[in-house]
Amino acid sequence: MQATPDFLNAVTRNAAHYTPGEQVNEPGWIKLNTNESPLPPSPRVFQALAELVGNGDLLKKYSHPLGEPLLSALAEFHALDKSALMVTNGSDEALALICRATLEPSRAAVFPAVTYSLYKTLVANAGAQYRETAMIERVGQPYAADLEALEAADAAVVFLPNPNAITGEYFAREKLVSIVAASQKLWVVDEAYNDFAGAGASMLAHVQELSNLVVTRTFSKTYALAGLRVGYLATSNAALMNGLMAHKDSYNEDAIATRLAAAALSDRDWHRRIINTVLSGREFLRAELSAMGFTVYDSAGNYLLCKAPAKMPAAEIVQALRSFKILIRYYSGSQFSDCVRISVGSEGENAKLIGSLKQILGQR
Amino acid sequence: MQATPDFLNAVTRNAAHYTPGEQVNEPGWIKLNTNESPLPPSPRVFQALAELVGNGDLLKKYSHPLGEPLLSALAEFHALDKSALMVTNGSDEALALICRATLEPSRAAVFPAVTYSLYKTLVANAGAQYRETAMIERVGQPYAADLEALEAADAAVVFLPNPNAITGEYFAREKLVSIVAASQKLWVVDEAYNDFAGAGASMLAHVQELSNLVVTRTFSKTYALAGLRVGYLATSNAALMNGLMAHKDSYNEDAIATRLAAAALSDRDWHRRIINTVLSGREFLRAELSAMGFTVYDSAGNYLLCKAPAKMPAAEIVQALRSFKILIRYYSGSQFSDCVRISVGSEGENAKLIGSLKQILGQR
Repeated sequence: MQATPDFLNAVTRNAAHYTPGEQVNEPGWIKLNTNESPLPPSPRVFQALAELVGNGDLLKKYSHPLGEPLLSALAEFHALDKSALMVTNGSDEALALICRATLEPSRAAVFPAVTYSLYKTLVANAGAQYRETAMIERVGQPYAADLEALEAADAAVVFLPNPNAITGEYFAREKLVSIVAASQKLWVVDEAYNDFAGAGASMLAHVQELSNLVVTRTFSKTYALAGLRVGYLATSNAALMNGLMAHKDSYNEDAIATRLAAAALSDRDWHRRIINTVLSGREFLRAELSAMGFTVYDSAGNYLLCKAPAKMPAAEIVQALRSFKILIRYYSGSQFSDCVRISVGSEGENAKLIGSLKQILGQR
Repeated sequence: MQATPDFLNAVTRNAAHYTPGEQVNEPGWIKLNTNESPLPPSPRVFQALAELVGNGDLLKKYSHPLGEPLLSALAEFHALDKSALMVTNGSDEALALICRATLEPSRAAVFPAVTYSLYKTLVANAGAQYRETAMIERVGQPYAADLEALEAADAAVVFLPNPNAITGEYFAREKLVSIVAASQKLWVVDEAYNDFAGAGASMLAHVQELSNLVVTRTFSKTYALAGLRVGYLATSNAALMNGLMAHKDSYNEDAIATRLAAAALSDRDWHRRIINTVLSGREFLRAELSAMGFTVYDSAGNYLLCKAPAKMPAAEIVQALRSFKILIRYYSGSQFSDCVRISVGSEGENAKLIGSLKQILGQR
């Protein structure tokens, strides 16, 4: 019997598959595993949604190729020219476009060994190689990224989330600016969690002056729209933007998503409320987890990486929490497999987590 | 002064850009240039939309990685296993994924010289070459595709829309099945317009038996959801599907779009109504355009390719219609630059088009 051919190219035959955090659809579960917002999106989002009911013309026509009306709203909000911005189907699409447009077998990417694991998949699937820089130990953060090593690496493109995924480490904007300004590499600063790091943490203000900088952002976290798939990227490098455009789907974002995201962007009070809820929840969790024997590392994101108490391994804690219908993230086989990563939830979710952990650890 | 580097890879530096049909946002324009639906989507779509108002949990959580609830609805509707289906961000994403997963410098694609022009862009941007087979003349269709030449071409993957884009030519399913069954190539049959070609026109029923067949479909045409960006692909080749999955964004489709598309799928009466409106509008346009001196070619799609009357060049007709705020499609510099392509609109739009053309041509 002849084997069925797979028709795959060489890159794909060896392709890496990214495993996203578990999604459960049954009610009653508390999801503290994928860094979603503890609050729903702004009421203005639902107002905008209600206004779309009956707008058949909007749905039957193709959506705007560049994601209007959101593109204009972002340009005004960030005081950037529209030509320096691209609306994407989540910031994951932005990252994938960057890989497709810039990498090739002779042009590698580099990122810290502990970071958003999707980068590996995207780089490999773009037919390129990646390097990882070893983490270094700093006070409060045993898995700190080595910015100098990233800059020194044999690679054309650097991927760095700020704050870093998983660890939550924040890199001072001034320091990053000076490194990027002196670099010949393309720096991709992934600001998915940047709004949690405080005003002035973003590199967006430096996009105009740094032609080797791309900033990616998302509506999934501080705008509570993970289910809507809206992100964007910013760069003042026109040639690079042109190359990214070549790889973008003609109509990559739909007509509803761009309108709802624009509505969310317009509600600054609600955005602040989501951030404040996360910041106070994070400090509550930090205090409670520390009191229970966890070592909680510094985090500027909406999640905490914590080393499990000596009396119970991290993997067992994760398993035990499942029986309470609580999901947290565990990276089995990693260099931090003695840790768990906990997303900051709502006040009620955080309380339920702490209560459950007390029961679990109290039995030891 | 040092030139700003573009950071692009070789493929992207020479990248092709696809130019979609013009989109106008001002009211009052009649768009007969991008084959959208003449009717709005099913009322069930708006009912589903209204039910989402206030569902904050849905939007704040990541959407289903595989596009549920739509995936299950499609599996049931087409009587296919869920593992043979992938929900995509429009069928354009499906086509792009196929290129990324299957092509490489040594594996070219082939398609008819006159077809959906996006294929060229997608193949080139996947770093591969494309071949084009010359059109052949048949009764009623001077730009017919040569299926035998497609099969004989030096290429690994064949792209063929059925009906064909631009020309509207329909390829008998039985003939296609026998060609694909005997082929060593991967055949991608793009069924964007297939529902207009009548019951039994689809290759979906043959996906199970033909492991070298991928069918792509969209909600943009007969479901009137172009603005929502929902499509899907079907293949029973598990290894191929696995490779396509590696290139798919983790959450490529949003939580609203999958629900609205499922609602549209459930309303068979509305789907039939859209098709019937197009079929009767198409025959009205065919008769009226023929009477005015256009040569109207056979079409099984929701559009008509017509050769302009001797007394006025196609480009001038397109230009003149703009002053009536009517857009139709013109392919300047192509082998059919003596033709226009007209999407079938609503009864009122079709009447306005014919009235305007009578005025334009009557002045000659």
